[in-house]
Amino acid sequence: MSATPEAATYPVELQERVDAYLEDLSFSAEPATAGLEEAMRHSLLAGGKRIRPVLALATAEALGRDLAEVLPLACAIELIHTYSLIHDDLPAMDDDELRRGQPTCHVAYGEDVAILAGDGLFAEAMRLVLEQQPGEPERVLAALNEVVSAAAVGGMVGGQYLDVTAPPGTPSEETLRHLHELKTGRLIAASVGSVLCLGGVPGPETIAYRRFAAELGVLFQIVDDLLDVTGDEAELGKPQGSDERHGKSTYVSVFGLERARELAVEAHGRARAALAEAEGRTHKLAQVTDYILTRHE
Amino acid sequence: MSATPEAATYPVELQERVDAYLEDLSFSAEPATAGLEEAMRHSLLAGGKRIRPVLALATAEALGRDLAEVLPLACAIELIHTYSLIHDDLPAMDDDELRRGQPTCHVAYGEDVAILAGDGLFAEAMRLVLEQQPGEPERVLAALNEVVSAAAVGGMVGGQYLDVTAPPGTPSEETLRHLHELKTGRLIAASVGSVLCLGGVPGPETIAYRRFAAELGVLFQIVDDLLDVTGDEAELGKPQGSDERHGKSTYVSVFGLERARELAVEAHGRARAALAEAEGRTHKLAQVTDYILTRHE
Repeated sequence: MSATPEAATYPVELQERVDAYLEDLSFSAEPATAGLEEAMRHSLLAGGKRIRPVLALATAEALGRDLAEVLPLACAIELIHTYSLIHDDLPAMDDDELRRGQPTCHVAYGEDVAILAGDGLFAEAMRLVLEQQPGEPERVLAALNEVVSAAAVGGMVGGQYLDVTAPPGTPSEETLRHLHELKTGRLIAASVGSVLCLGGVPGPETIAYRRFAAELGVLFQIVDDLLDVTGDEAELGKPQGSDERHGKSTYVSVFGLERARELAVEAHGRARAALAEAEGRTHKLAQVTDYILTRHE
Repeated sequence: MSATPEAATYPVELQERVDAYLEDLSFSAEPATAGLEEAMRHSLLAGGKRIRPVLALATAEALGRDLAEVLPLACAIELIHTYSLIHDDLPAMDDDELRRGQPTCHVAYGEDVAILAGDGLFAEAMRLVLEQQPGEPERVLAALNEVVSAAAVGGMVGGQYLDVTAPPGTPSEETLRHLHELKTGRLIAASVGSVLCLGGVPGPETIAYRRFAAELGVLFQIVDDLLDVTGDEAELGKPQGSDERHGKSTYVSVFGLERARELAVEAHGRARAALAEAEGRTHKLAQVTDYILTRHE
Protein backbone atom coordinates (compact mmCIF):
# COMPACT_ATOMS: atom_id res chain seq x y z
CA MET A 1 0.00 0.00 0.00
CA SER A 2 1.11 3.54 -0.57
CA ALA A 3 1.86 6.03 2.18
CA THR A 4 -1.17 8.13 3.07
CA PRO A 5 -0.06 9.95 6.18
CA GLU A 6 -2.72 12.63 5.83
CA ALA A 7 -5.46 10.13 6.55
CA ALA A 8 -3.59 8.37 9.35
CA THR A 9 -5.89 6.04 11.26
CA TYR A 10 -4.61 4.75 14.55
CA PRO A 11 -5.41 1.09 15.32
CA VAL A 12 -7.56 1.98 18.31
CA GLU A 13 -8.71 -1.61 18.70
CA LEU A 14 -5.15 -2.58 19.65
CA GLN A 15 -4.84 0.36 22.04
CA GLU A 16 -8.07 -0.72 23.74
CA ARG A 17 -6.74 -4.21 24.34
CA VAL A 18 -3.60 -2.75 25.89
CA ASP A 19 -5.59 -0.34 28.07
CA ALA A 20 -7.87 -3.12 29.30
CA TYR A 21 -4.90 -5.35 30.13
CA LEU A 22 -3.06 -2.59 31.98
CA GLU A 23 -6.18 -1.63 33.91
CA ASP A 24 -6.52 -5.21 35.19
CA LEU A 25 -2.90 -5.54 36.33
CA SER A 26 -2.31 -5.94 40.03
CA PHE A 27 1.20 -6.04 41.43
CA SER A 28 0.76 -7.38 44.92
CA ALA A 29 -2.05 -8.65 47.11
CA GLU A 30 -0.55 -6.80 50.10
CA PRO A 31 -2.77 -4.09 51.59
CA ALA A 32 0.35 -2.54 53.18
CA THR A 33 1.83 -1.51 49.83
CA ALA A 34 -1.44 -0.33 48.28
CA GLY A 35 -0.15 3.27 48.34
CA LEU A 36 2.83 2.30 46.20
CA GLU A 37 0.56 0.55 43.72
CA GLU A 38 -1.62 3.63 43.58
CA ALA A 39 1.41 5.77 42.62
CA MET A 40 2.42 3.22 39.97
CA ARG A 41 -1.10 3.14 38.54
CA HIS A 42 -1.37 6.94 38.62
CA SER A 43 1.36 7.13 36.00
CA LEU A 44 0.60 3.88 34.19
CA LEU A 45 -3.06 4.66 33.62
CA ALA A 46 -2.69 8.35 32.78
CA GLY A 47 -3.59 7.66 29.18
CA GLY A 48 -1.45 8.01 26.11
CA LYS A 49 -1.57 6.24 22.79
CA ARG A 50 0.36 3.16 24.03
CA ILE A 51 2.50 3.34 20.91
CA ARG A 52 5.05 0.73 22.08
CA PRO A 53 2.64 -2.06 23.04
CA VAL A 54 0.44 -1.24 20.03
CA LEU A 55 3.52 -1.68 17.84
CA ALA A 56 4.15 -5.03 19.52
CA LEU A 57 0.57 -6.17 18.88
CA ALA A 58 0.64 -4.87 15.31
CA THR A 59 3.84 -6.86 14.75
CA ALA A 60 2.15 -9.97 16.15
CA GLU A 61 -0.74 -9.40 13.77
CA ALA A 62 1.65 -8.98 10.84
CA LEU A 63 3.16 -12.36 11.72
CA GLY A 64 -0.29 -13.98 11.98
CA ARG A 65 0.00 -14.56 15.73
CA ASP A 66 -2.72 -14.57 18.36
CA LEU A 67 -2.68 -11.14 19.99
CA ALA A 68 -3.57 -12.47 23.44
CA GLU A 69 -0.30 -14.39 23.44
CA VAL A 70 1.76 -11.23 23.08
CA LEU A 71 -0.08 -8.99 25.55
CA PRO A 72 2.16 -9.62 28.62
CA LEU A 73 5.34 -8.79 26.70
CA ALA A 74 3.70 -5.81 24.96
CA CYS A 75 2.39 -4.35 28.20
CA ALA A 76 5.70 -4.97 30.01
CA ILE A 77 7.24 -2.54 27.52
CA GLU A 78 4.65 0.08 28.51
CA LEU A 79 5.51 -0.45 32.19
CA ILE A 80 9.18 0.15 31.37
CA HIS A 81 8.32 3.24 29.35
CA THR A 82 6.23 4.56 32.26
CA TYR A 83 9.02 3.88 34.76
CA SER A 84 11.40 5.90 32.59
CA LEU A 85 8.94 8.82 32.42
CA ILE A 86 8.55 8.86 36.22
CA HIS A 87 12.32 8.96 36.76
CA ASP A 88 12.91 11.48 33.94
CA ASP A 89 10.33 13.83 35.50
CA LEU A 90 12.04 13.86 38.94
CA PRO A 91 13.35 17.17 40.29
CA ALA A 92 16.95 15.93 39.98
CA MET A 93 16.33 15.16 36.29
CA ASP A 94 13.96 17.20 34.07
CA ASP A 95 11.90 18.52 37.01
CA ASP A 96 8.58 18.36 35.17
CA GLU A 97 5.33 18.87 37.02
CA LEU A 98 2.83 17.90 34.36
CA ARG A 99 2.62 14.78 32.22
CA ARG A 100 -0.35 13.84 30.07
CA GLY A 101 -2.26 16.68 31.72
CA GLN A 102 -1.82 15.28 35.22
CA PRO A 103 0.57 16.04 38.05
CA THR A 104 3.71 13.95 37.63
CA CYS A 105 4.23 11.09 40.06
CA HIS A 106 6.55 12.95 42.45
CA VAL A 107 4.20 15.96 42.55
CA ALA A 108 1.28 13.70 43.45
CA TYR A 109 3.04 11.26 45.80
CA GLY A 110 6.39 12.73 46.83
CA GLU A 111 9.85 12.18 45.47
CA ASP A 112 10.66 9.10 47.55
CA VAL A 113 7.51 7.26 46.50
CA ALA A 114 8.01 8.31 42.86
CA ILE A 115 11.53 6.83 42.77
CA LEU A 116 10.13 3.59 44.19
CA ALA A 117 7.13 3.63 41.83
CA GLY A 118 9.58 3.75 38.91
CA ASP A 119 11.73 1.00 40.41
CA GLY A 120 8.63 -1.05 41.08
CA LEU A 121 7.27 -0.69 37.53
CA PHE A 122 10.59 -1.88 36.10
CA ALA A 123 10.66 -4.95 38.36
CA GLU A 124 6.99 -5.70 37.70
CA ALA A 125 7.56 -5.43 33.95
CA MET A 126 10.11 -8.25 34.24
CA ARG A 127 7.76 -10.29 36.42
CA LEU A 128 4.95 -9.82 33.92
CA VAL A 129 7.01 -11.45 31.18
CA LEU A 130 8.57 -14.11 33.41
CA GLU A 131 5.25 -15.20 34.91
CA GLN A 132 2.64 -14.48 32.25
CA GLN A 133 4.26 -14.66 28.84
CA PRO A 134 3.42 -17.89 27.00
CA GLY A 135 5.89 -19.43 24.57
CA GLU A 136 8.99 -21.58 24.31
CA PRO A 137 11.25 -20.66 27.26
CA GLU A 138 14.13 -20.03 24.90
CA ARG A 139 12.11 -17.55 22.89
CA VAL A 140 10.75 -15.81 25.98
CA LEU A 141 14.34 -15.37 27.21
CA ALA A 142 15.38 -13.89 23.86
CA ALA A 143 12.38 -11.54 23.74
CA LEU A 144 12.96 -10.35 27.30
CA ASN A 145 16.63 -9.79 26.57
CA GLU A 146 15.74 -7.63 23.59
CA VAL A 147 13.55 -5.45 25.81
CA VAL A 148 15.96 -5.33 28.76
CA SER A 149 18.93 -4.47 26.54
CA ALA A 150 16.95 -1.60 25.05
CA ALA A 151 16.35 -0.29 28.57
CA ALA A 152 19.94 -0.77 29.85
CA VAL A 153 23.19 1.22 29.64
CA GLY A 154 23.43 0.61 25.89
CA GLY A 155 19.85 1.89 25.53
CA MET A 156 17.36 4.02 27.44
CA VAL A 157 19.34 4.58 30.65
CA GLY A 158 22.50 5.40 28.69
CA GLY A 159 20.55 7.81 26.47
CA GLN A 160 19.06 9.59 29.45
CA TYR A 161 22.58 9.86 30.90
CA LEU A 162 23.77 11.51 27.67
CA ASP A 163 20.79 13.84 27.86
CA VAL A 164 21.34 15.03 31.45
CA THR A 165 25.11 15.36 31.04
CA ALA A 166 25.13 16.95 27.57
CA PRO A 167 27.55 19.87 27.42
CA PRO A 168 26.06 23.28 26.59
CA GLY A 169 26.06 24.23 22.92
CA THR A 170 24.80 22.61 19.78
CA PRO A 171 25.75 18.97 19.31
CA SER A 172 26.63 17.47 15.95
CA GLU A 173 23.89 15.72 14.02
CA GLU A 174 25.63 12.42 14.78
CA THR A 175 25.70 13.08 18.55
CA LEU A 176 22.04 14.05 18.56
CA ARG A 177 21.03 10.98 16.57
CA HIS A 178 23.04 8.75 18.85
CA LEU A 179 21.51 10.20 22.03
CA HIS A 180 18.00 9.69 20.71
CA GLU A 181 18.72 6.26 19.33
CA LEU A 182 19.68 5.15 22.84
CA LYS A 183 17.10 7.13 24.79
CA THR A 184 14.01 6.48 22.67
CA GLY A 185 14.83 4.57 19.52
CA ARG A 186 15.96 1.30 21.03
CA LEU A 187 12.81 0.69 23.09
CA ILE A 188 10.60 1.60 20.11
CA ALA A 189 12.61 -0.83 17.98
CA ALA A 190 12.44 -3.51 20.69
CA SER A 191 8.65 -3.26 20.62
CA VAL A 192 8.88 -4.78 17.15
CA GLY A 193 12.07 -6.82 17.63
CA SER A 194 11.03 -8.63 20.80
CA VAL A 195 7.89 -9.92 19.08
CA LEU A 196 10.06 -11.24 16.23
CA CYS A 197 12.09 -13.12 18.88
CA LEU A 198 8.95 -14.46 20.49
CA GLY A 199 7.58 -15.64 17.16
CA GLY A 200 10.80 -17.43 16.30
CA VAL A 201 10.94 -15.63 12.96
CA PRO A 202 13.99 -16.83 11.00
CA GLY A 203 16.85 -14.33 10.69
CA PRO A 204 16.55 -13.33 7.02
CA GLU A 205 12.85 -12.54 7.35
CA THR A 206 13.50 -10.15 10.22
CA ILE A 207 15.83 -7.85 8.26
CA ALA A 208 13.12 -5.64 6.77
CA TYR A 209 11.22 -5.49 10.06
CA ARG A 210 14.33 -4.47 11.94
CA ARG A 211 15.18 -1.76 9.42
CA PHE A 212 11.60 -0.54 9.71
CA ALA A 213 11.81 -0.50 13.52
CA ALA A 214 15.05 1.49 13.54
CA GLU A 215 13.63 4.14 11.20
CA LEU A 216 10.46 4.32 13.26
CA GLY A 217 12.52 5.22 16.33
CA VAL A 218 14.16 8.11 14.46
CA LEU A 219 10.81 9.29 13.11
CA PHE A 220 9.25 9.17 16.55
CA GLN A 221 11.93 11.36 18.10
CA ILE A 222 11.96 14.00 15.38
CA VAL A 223 8.19 14.38 15.66
CA ASP A 224 8.51 14.53 19.46
CA ASP A 225 10.93 17.43 19.13
CA LEU A 226 8.66 19.17 16.61
CA LEU A 227 5.64 18.81 18.90
CA ASP A 228 7.53 20.36 21.78
CA VAL A 229 7.74 23.54 19.69
CA THR A 230 4.55 23.47 17.62
CA GLY A 231 2.23 21.37 19.77
CA ASP A 232 -0.84 22.49 21.65
CA GLU A 233 -0.40 22.38 25.44
CA ALA A 234 -3.85 20.95 26.03
CA GLU A 235 -3.23 18.14 23.57
CA LEU A 236 0.34 17.54 24.70
CA GLY A 237 -0.68 17.47 28.35
CA LYS A 238 2.56 19.20 29.30
CA PRO A 239 3.95 22.70 28.91
CA GLN A 240 4.94 23.42 25.35
CA GLY A 241 8.55 24.52 24.81
CA SER A 242 9.91 22.62 27.80
CA ASP A 243 12.89 21.24 25.83
CA GLU A 244 13.96 24.76 24.97
CA ARG A 245 13.60 25.95 28.55
CA HIS A 246 15.71 23.01 29.72
CA GLY A 247 18.37 23.99 27.20
CA LYS A 248 17.99 20.64 25.46
CA SER A 249 19.30 20.03 22.01
CA THR A 250 16.58 18.77 19.72
CA TYR A 251 16.12 18.20 16.03
CA VAL A 252 14.49 21.63 15.92
CA SER A 253 17.25 23.47 17.79
CA VAL A 254 19.93 21.81 15.66
CA PHE A 255 18.25 21.87 12.24
CA GLY A 256 15.53 24.47 12.51
CA LEU A 257 11.80 23.85 12.17
CA GLU A 258 11.61 23.48 8.41
CA ARG A 259 14.51 21.06 8.02
CA ALA A 260 13.32 19.02 11.03
CA ARG A 261 9.94 18.64 9.29
CA GLU A 262 11.69 17.44 6.15
CA LEU A 263 13.77 14.98 8.16
CA ALA A 264 10.59 13.58 9.69
CA VAL A 265 9.03 13.07 6.27
CA GLU A 266 12.22 11.39 5.06
CA ALA A 267 12.36 9.05 8.07
CA HIS A 268 8.69 8.22 7.51
CA GLY A 269 9.41 7.40 3.89
CA ARG A 270 12.31 5.11 4.80
CA ALA A 271 10.23 3.36 7.48
CA ARG A 272 7.39 2.75 5.02
CA ALA A 273 9.80 1.55 2.33
CA ALA A 274 11.32 -0.97 4.74
CA LEU A 275 7.87 -2.12 5.80
CA ALA A 276 6.85 -2.63 2.20
CA GLU A 277 9.60 -5.23 1.95
CA ALA A 278 8.57 -7.08 5.11
CA GLU A 279 6.53 -10.24 4.68
CA GLY A 280 3.19 -10.41 6.45
CA ARG A 281 0.02 -8.43 7.02
CA THR A 282 1.73 -5.16 7.81
CA HIS A 283 -1.32 -2.94 7.41
CA LYS A 284 -1.56 -1.92 11.07
CA LEU A 285 2.16 -1.31 11.39
CA ALA A 286 1.75 1.08 8.45
CA GLN A 287 -1.10 2.79 10.28
CA VAL A 288 1.04 3.34 13.35
CA THR A 289 3.87 4.66 11.19
CA ASP A 290 1.57 7.19 9.54
CA TYR A 291 0.07 8.13 12.88
CA ILE A 292 3.52 8.81 14.35
CA LEU A 293 4.26 11.30 11.55
CA THR A 294 0.95 13.13 11.86
CA ARG A 295 0.23 12.90 15.60
CA HIS A 296 -0.51 15.99 17.67
CA GLU A 297 0.24 14.60 21.14
CA MET B 1 28.12 -30.10 62.44
CA SER B 2 27.35 -28.07 65.55
CA ALA B 3 27.01 -24.31 65.63
CA THR B 4 30.26 -22.59 66.52
CA PRO B 5 29.46 -18.94 65.89
CA GLU B 6 32.39 -17.69 67.99
CA ALA B 7 34.89 -19.10 65.52
CA ALA B 8 32.96 -18.01 62.44
CA THR B 9 35.10 -18.30 59.33
CA TYR B 10 33.82 -16.56 56.23
CA PRO B 11 34.28 -18.44 52.95
CA VAL B 12 36.65 -15.82 51.56
CA GLU B 13 37.46 -18.00 48.55
CA LEU B 14 33.86 -17.55 47.35
CA GLN B 15 33.96 -13.81 47.99
CA GLU B 16 37.14 -13.57 45.92
CA ARG B 17 35.47 -15.27 42.97
CA VAL B 18 32.59 -12.82 43.18
CA ASP B 19 34.92 -9.82 43.46
CA ALA B 20 36.96 -10.96 40.46
CA TYR B 21 33.82 -11.48 38.36
CA LEU B 22 32.36 -8.09 39.32
CA GLU B 23 35.66 -6.37 38.62
CA ASP B 24 35.68 -7.77 35.07
CA LEU B 25 32.11 -6.75 34.23
CA SER B 26 31.66 -4.18 31.50
CA PHE B 27 28.22 -2.83 30.69
CA SER B 28 28.69 -1.12 27.36
CA ALA B 29 31.42 -0.63 24.82
CA GLU B 30 30.26 2.99 24.31
CA PRO B 31 32.81 5.66 25.25
CA ALA B 32 29.94 8.18 25.51
CA THR B 33 28.42 6.49 28.57
CA ALA B 34 31.74 5.78 30.32
CA GLY B 35 30.83 8.30 33.04
CA LEU B 36 27.67 6.37 33.87
CA GLU B 37 29.62 3.12 34.08
CA GLU B 38 32.09 4.81 36.39
CA ALA B 39 29.29 5.80 38.77
CA MET B 40 27.88 2.25 38.65
CA ARG B 41 31.31 0.75 39.36
CA HIS B 42 31.96 3.29 42.15
CA SER B 43 29.14 1.72 44.14
CA LEU B 44 29.48 -1.85 42.87
CA LEU B 45 33.19 -2.13 43.67
CA ALA B 46 33.14 -0.30 47.02
CA GLY B 47 33.81 -3.55 48.83
CA GLY B 48 31.58 -5.42 51.23
CA LYS B 49 31.34 -9.08 52.07
CA ARG B 50 29.19 -9.97 49.03
CA ILE B 51 26.91 -11.98 51.32
CA ARG B 52 24.18 -12.53 48.71
CA PRO B 53 26.34 -13.88 45.87
CA VAL B 54 28.46 -15.82 48.36
CA LEU B 55 25.25 -17.45 49.62
CA ALA B 56 24.36 -18.32 46.03
CA LEU B 57 27.78 -19.89 45.43
CA ALA B 58 27.68 -21.73 48.77
CA THR B 59 24.27 -23.12 47.78
CA ALA B 60 25.71 -24.27 44.44
CA GLU B 61 28.53 -25.99 46.32
CA ALA B 62 26.05 -27.67 48.67
CA LEU B 63 24.25 -29.05 45.61
CA GLY B 64 27.52 -30.27 44.07
CA ARG B 65 27.37 -27.80 41.17
CA ASP B 66 30.17 -26.11 39.32
CA LEU B 67 30.54 -22.62 40.82
CA ALA B 68 31.47 -21.02 37.51
CA GLU B 69 28.03 -21.95 36.20
CA VAL B 70 26.28 -19.94 38.89
CA LEU B 71 28.44 -16.81 38.87
CA PRO B 72 26.30 -14.69 36.48
CA LEU B 73 23.14 -15.25 38.53
CA ALA B 74 24.99 -14.78 41.83
CA CYS B 75 26.59 -11.52 40.72
CA ALA B 76 23.33 -10.24 39.22
CA ILE B 77 21.92 -10.36 42.76
CA GLU B 78 24.80 -8.18 43.95
CA LEU B 79 24.06 -5.68 41.17
CA ILE B 80 20.45 -5.52 42.32
CA HIS B 81 21.52 -5.09 45.94
CA THR B 82 23.87 -2.27 44.91
CA TYR B 83 21.15 -0.54 42.89
CA SER B 84 18.88 -0.62 45.94
CA LEU B 85 21.62 0.92 48.13
CA ILE B 86 22.17 3.76 45.64
CA HIS B 87 18.47 4.62 45.53
CA ASP B 88 18.02 4.20 49.31
CA ASP B 89 20.88 6.65 49.92
CA LEU B 90 19.35 9.42 47.75
CA PRO B 91 18.45 12.74 49.39
CA ALA B 92 14.73 12.06 48.85
CA MET B 93 15.09 8.72 50.67
CA ASP B 94 17.56 8.15 53.57
CA ASP B 95 19.87 11.00 52.52
CA ASP B 96 23.08 9.18 53.48
CA GLU B 97 26.45 10.58 52.46
CA LEU B 98 28.71 7.67 53.38
CA ARG B 99 28.48 4.02 52.44
CA ARG B 100 31.22 1.48 53.02
CA GLY B 101 33.51 4.36 53.99
CA GLN B 102 33.10 6.12 50.64
CA PRO B 103 30.93 9.00 49.44
CA THR B 104 27.57 7.63 48.29
CA CYS B 105 26.87 7.65 44.57
CA HIS B 106 24.89 10.91 44.50
CA VAL B 107 27.53 12.70 46.58
CA ALA B 108 30.24 11.59 44.17
CA TYR B 109 28.35 11.94 40.86
CA GLY B 110 25.23 14.02 41.46
CA GLU B 111 21.67 12.98 42.09
CA ASP B 112 20.64 12.62 38.45
CA VAL B 113 23.54 10.31 37.60
CA ALA B 114 22.98 8.32 40.82
CA ILE B 115 19.33 7.65 39.93
CA LEU B 116 20.44 6.45 36.49
CA ALA B 117 23.32 4.40 37.95
CA GLY B 118 20.78 2.54 40.07
CA ASP B 119 18.42 2.09 37.12
CA GLY B 120 21.33 0.93 34.99
CA LEU B 121 22.54 -1.64 37.54
CA PHE B 122 19.06 -3.13 37.75
CA ALA B 123 18.78 -3.45 33.96
CA GLU B 124 22.33 -4.80 33.65
CA ALA B 125 21.61 -7.39 36.36
CA MET B 126 18.81 -8.75 34.18
CA ARG B 127 21.02 -8.69 31.10
CA LEU B 128 23.75 -10.56 32.96
CA VAL B 129 21.41 -13.46 33.65
CA LEU B 130 19.68 -13.36 30.25
CA GLU B 131 22.95 -13.27 28.28
CA GLN B 132 25.50 -15.07 30.45
CA GLN B 133 23.71 -17.59 32.64
CA PRO B 134 24.14 -21.18 31.39
CA GLY B 135 21.40 -23.74 31.96
CA GLU B 136 18.09 -25.02 30.64
CA PRO B 137 16.09 -21.96 29.50
CA GLU B 138 13.16 -23.03 31.66
CA ARG B 139 15.34 -23.12 34.76
CA VAL B 140 17.02 -19.82 33.96
CA LEU B 141 13.57 -18.22 33.66
CA ALA B 142 12.52 -19.68 37.02
CA ALA B 143 15.73 -18.55 38.73
CA LEU B 144 15.42 -15.04 37.31
CA ASN B 145 11.81 -14.85 38.37
CA GLU B 146 12.77 -15.77 41.92
CA VAL B 147 15.27 -12.90 41.99
CA VAL B 148 13.02 -10.36 40.25
CA SER B 149 10.05 -11.16 42.49
CA ALA B 150 12.25 -10.61 45.55
CA ALA B 151 13.14 -7.17 44.17
CA ALA B 152 9.60 -6.16 43.14
CA VAL B 153 6.56 -4.69 44.91
CA GLY B 154 6.07 -7.87 46.95
CA GLY B 155 9.75 -7.67 47.98
CA MET B 156 12.53 -5.11 48.20
CA VAL B 157 10.77 -2.12 46.60
CA GLY B 158 7.62 -2.75 48.65
CA GLY B 159 9.69 -3.03 51.84
CA GLN B 160 11.49 0.22 51.13
CA TYR B 161 8.10 1.86 50.54
CA LEU B 162 6.92 0.62 53.96
CA ASP B 163 10.13 1.99 55.45
CA VAL B 164 9.88 5.51 53.99
CA THR B 165 6.14 5.81 54.70
CA ALA B 166 6.12 4.25 58.19
CA PRO B 167 4.00 6.30 60.58
CA PRO B 168 5.80 7.73 63.61
CA GLY B 169 5.74 5.61 66.74
CA THR B 170 6.69 2.05 67.55
CA PRO B 171 5.33 -0.58 65.16
CA SER B 172 4.15 -3.98 66.29
CA GLU B 173 6.59 -6.89 66.12
CA GLU B 174 4.58 -8.27 63.24
CA THR B 175 4.74 -5.01 61.26
CA LEU B 176 8.49 -4.74 61.81
CA ARG B 177 9.10 -8.35 60.75
CA HIS B 178 6.98 -7.88 57.66
CA LEU B 179 8.78 -4.70 56.60
CA HIS B 180 12.15 -6.38 56.93
CA GLU B 181 11.03 -9.59 55.30
CA LEU B 182 10.12 -7.58 52.20
CA LYS B 183 12.98 -5.08 52.27
CA THR B 184 15.88 -7.43 53.04
CA GLY B 185 14.74 -10.95 53.72
CA ARG B 186 13.34 -11.84 50.33
CA LEU B 187 16.51 -11.01 48.36
CA ILE B 188 18.66 -12.87 50.91
CA ALA B 189 16.31 -15.85 50.59
CA ALA B 190 16.33 -15.59 46.78
CA SER B 191 20.13 -15.86 46.83
CA VAL B 192 19.58 -19.44 47.97
CA GLY B 193 16.22 -20.09 46.29
CA SER B 194 17.22 -18.99 42.79
CA VAL B 195 20.12 -21.46 42.81
CA LEU B 196 17.71 -24.24 43.79
CA CYS B 197 15.63 -23.27 40.73
CA LEU B 198 18.68 -23.24 38.51
CA GLY B 199 19.79 -26.65 39.77
CA GLY B 200 16.37 -28.14 39.13
CA VAL B 201 16.24 -29.46 42.70
CA PRO B 202 13.00 -31.42 43.24
CA GLY B 203 10.39 -29.71 45.46
CA PRO B 204 10.63 -31.86 48.62
CA GLU B 205 14.40 -31.44 48.81
CA THR B 206 14.13 -27.68 48.75
CA ILE B 207 11.96 -27.39 51.87
CA ALA B 208 14.80 -27.36 54.42
CA TYR B 209 16.84 -24.98 52.25
CA ARG B 210 13.96 -22.59 51.93
CA ARG B 211 13.27 -22.63 55.66
CA PHE B 212 16.95 -21.97 56.21
CA ALA B 213 16.93 -19.07 53.74
CA ALA B 214 13.91 -17.43 55.37
CA GLU B 215 15.48 -17.59 58.85
CA LEU B 216 18.74 -16.26 57.48
CA GLY B 217 16.94 -13.14 56.22
CA VAL B 218 15.52 -12.50 59.69
CA LEU B 219 18.90 -13.08 61.33
CA PHE B 220 20.60 -10.73 58.88
CA GLN B 221 18.23 -7.87 59.64
CA ILE B 222 18.34 -8.19 63.44
CA VAL B 223 22.15 -8.11 63.35
CA ASP B 224 22.03 -5.14 60.97
CA ASP B 225 19.90 -3.25 63.48
CA LEU B 226 22.23 -4.22 66.34
CA LEU B 227 25.28 -3.06 64.43
CA ASP B 228 23.70 0.32 63.78
CA VAL B 229 23.72 0.85 67.56
CA THR B 230 26.79 -1.07 68.70
CA GLY B 231 28.99 -1.08 65.60
CA ASP B 232 32.24 0.74 65.07
CA GLU B 233 31.98 3.57 62.51
CA ALA B 234 35.30 2.71 60.89
CA GLU B 235 34.27 -0.92 60.41
CA LEU B 236 30.70 -0.08 59.40
CA GLY B 237 31.89 2.52 56.89
CA LYS B 238 28.90 4.70 57.74
CA PRO B 239 27.85 6.83 60.70
CA GLN B 240 26.77 4.73 63.65
CA GLY B 241 23.27 5.41 65.01
CA SER B 242 21.86 6.55 61.67
CA ASP B 243 18.66 4.48 62.05
CA GLU B 244 17.91 6.24 65.30
CA ARG B 245 18.55 9.67 63.78
CA HIS B 246 16.22 8.85 60.91
CA GLY B 247 13.55 7.86 63.45
CA LYS B 248 13.49 4.34 62.05
CA SER B 249 11.95 1.49 63.92
CA THR B 250 14.43 -1.33 64.37
CA TYR B 251 14.66 -4.54 66.36
CA VAL B 252 16.64 -2.54 68.93
CA SER B 253 14.17 0.35 69.19
CA VAL B 254 11.24 -2.05 69.48
CA PHE B 255 12.75 -4.76 71.71
CA GLY B 256 15.75 -3.14 73.37
CA LEU B 257 19.36 -4.18 72.92
CA GLU B 258 19.35 -7.27 75.12
CA ARG B 259 16.19 -8.83 73.70
CA ALA B 260 17.31 -8.03 70.15
CA ARG B 261 20.54 -9.94 70.81
CA GLU B 262 18.54 -12.91 72.08
CA LEU B 263 16.32 -12.79 69.00
CA ALA B 264 19.42 -12.88 66.79
CA VAL B 265 20.75 -15.94 68.60
CA GLU B 266 17.36 -17.63 68.28
CA ALA B 267 17.11 -16.88 64.55
CA HIS B 268 20.65 -18.21 64.10
CA GLY B 269 19.67 -21.40 65.92
CA ARG B 270 16.60 -21.90 63.73
CA ALA B 271 18.62 -21.25 60.56
CA ARG B 272 21.27 -23.78 61.58
CA ALA B 273 18.63 -26.34 62.57
CA ALA B 274 16.97 -26.02 59.16
CA LEU B 275 20.32 -26.32 57.44
CA ALA B 276 21.13 -29.48 59.39
CA GLU B 277 18.11 -31.08 57.71
CA ALA B 278 19.10 -30.01 54.20
CA GLU B 279 20.77 -32.60 52.00
CA GLY B 280 24.17 -31.75 50.57
CA ARG B 281 27.54 -30.35 51.53
CA THR B 282 26.21 -27.44 53.54
CA HIS B 283 29.44 -26.58 55.35
CA LYS B 284 29.95 -23.20 53.67
CA LEU B 285 26.33 -22.17 54.10
CA ALA B 286 26.85 -22.87 57.82
CA GLN B 287 29.96 -20.69 57.76
CA VAL B 288 28.02 -17.79 56.23
CA THR B 289 25.23 -18.26 58.79
CA ASP B 290 27.70 -18.08 61.67
CA TYR B 291 29.43 -15.12 60.10
CA ILE B 292 26.15 -13.21 59.82
CA LEU B 293 25.55 -13.62 63.57
CA THR B 294 29.05 -12.53 64.59
CA ARG B 295 29.90 -9.94 61.92
CA HIS B 296 31.05 -6.46 62.87
CA GLU B 297 30.38 -4.70 59.57
